[in-house]
Amino acid sequence: MAVRAHSGRRPGDSGTREAIARAARRQFAELGYDRTSMRQVALEAEVDPTLVSHFHGSKRQLFLSVIGLPFQPADVLPGLLAGDPDEAGARLARFALGVFESEDGRSRAVGLIRAATSEPEAARLVRDLLTREVLTPLAEGIGSDDAAYRASLLMSQIVGLIMARYIVAVEPLASRDHLAVADAIAPTLQRYLTGDLSTQLPQSRQAVSG
Amino acid sequence: MAVRAHSGRRPGDSGTREAIARAARRQFAELGYDRTSMRQVALEAEVDPTLVSHFHGSKRQLFLSVIGLPFQPADVLPGLLAGDPDEAGARLARFALGVFESEDGRSRAVGLIRAATSEPEAARLVRDLLTREVLTPLAEGIGSDDAAYRASLLMSQIVGLIMARYIVAVEPLASRDHLAVADAIAPTLQRYLTGDLSTQLPQSRQAVSG
Repeated sequence: MAVRAHSGRRPGDSGTREAIARAARRQFAELGYDRTSMRQVALEAEVDPTLVSHFHGSKRQLFLSVIGLPFQPADVLPGLLAGDPDEAGARLARFALGVFESEDGRSRAVGLIRAATSEPEAARLVRDLLTREVLTPLAEGIGSDDAAYRASLLMSQIVGLIMARYIVAVEPLASRDHLAVADAIAPTLQRYLTGDLSTQLPQSRQAVSG
Repeated sequence: MAVRAHSGRRPGDSGTREAIARAARRQFAELGYDRTSMRQVALEAEVDPTLVSHFHGSKRQLFLSVIGLPFQPADVLPGLLAGDPDEAGARLARFALGVFESEDGRSRAVGLIRAATSEPEAARLVRDLLTREVLTPLAEGIGSDDAAYRASLLMSQIVGLIMARYIVAVEPLASRDHLAVADAIAPTLQRYLTGDLSTQLPQSRQAVSG
């Protein structure tokens, strides 16, 4: 990308901070944490490189400030909890797929998951933001036993969907209509929320050995 | 790591190639693709750095030669397909968790998923090795319609489990007994293999908005 840096913006410019955040979010999502540089963010945002640290501090601080949930858990949880508990899995599936359909939501989700594979700080963010602030309160609100375990199983399917559909982009999952995908994973999320988690198959059955 | 490089091994040494592969596999799994260097691999393997490229070529070639499935699909598929089709999900869950319980299996799985988030080549490996060579033939062998879609859904849960349990390490999933986790995800895998994937919930129900 041969975008020239413009030095015309002043630190006080409204929009400068947001332009930096937008460029950083895009680069963290597309390139991952390691390959994103403050300098390239400045180039894409068309600001002087010193403004990136002026507004956002270190690369780690920049990451933490631009990657995160694109919604407030407190705004979303009541809607997920309202209504038939046996349809909470479907509500969660449609909500998640709806978030990923928006460019901002998808960028944040992909950026967070990409970074979580290499940055312990980002892995902690996934645990804190997604599991502790959204999924555990959801499982608790529905009144399930073992809510933290259920939340971590929910997280495994949601994170796996982000990986499979948006990062690894395995077909035909990557191009299926998002509502069809929501329907396909809804019963999984429902069972993790309220179902029996021990299938109690015959213990005598041997595992397949590789 | 202040391991000194020993230059005493000759290119012909038996075990040298395997020592390099073991060090590379560990570093790709722990550090990710970007942060793994040929030089650090040589240090850990206690060989002269020139031997790494002598045996394995470029970093990309090294990655491709040491990361991959820790089993041959042709050895495993018959066992997964044998028996009651309604228990194929349980067989797959136990087989996968069994692979991840071994250090070699877990290193390869984690290395592959870590790399797949930043390296298109590794993402292609996930699609080819896991989806095309294992999961699609499994779904086809069980006689399911839409086998490629089912395989990509299976992949989403298996990759998500690797992320949640081994990379992000969300508790209590990360420390639960592997057979209990296999029981928890088995019905998910079973439904993706043979179940109805369109839950056909009332279309009038609105998605929760963030």
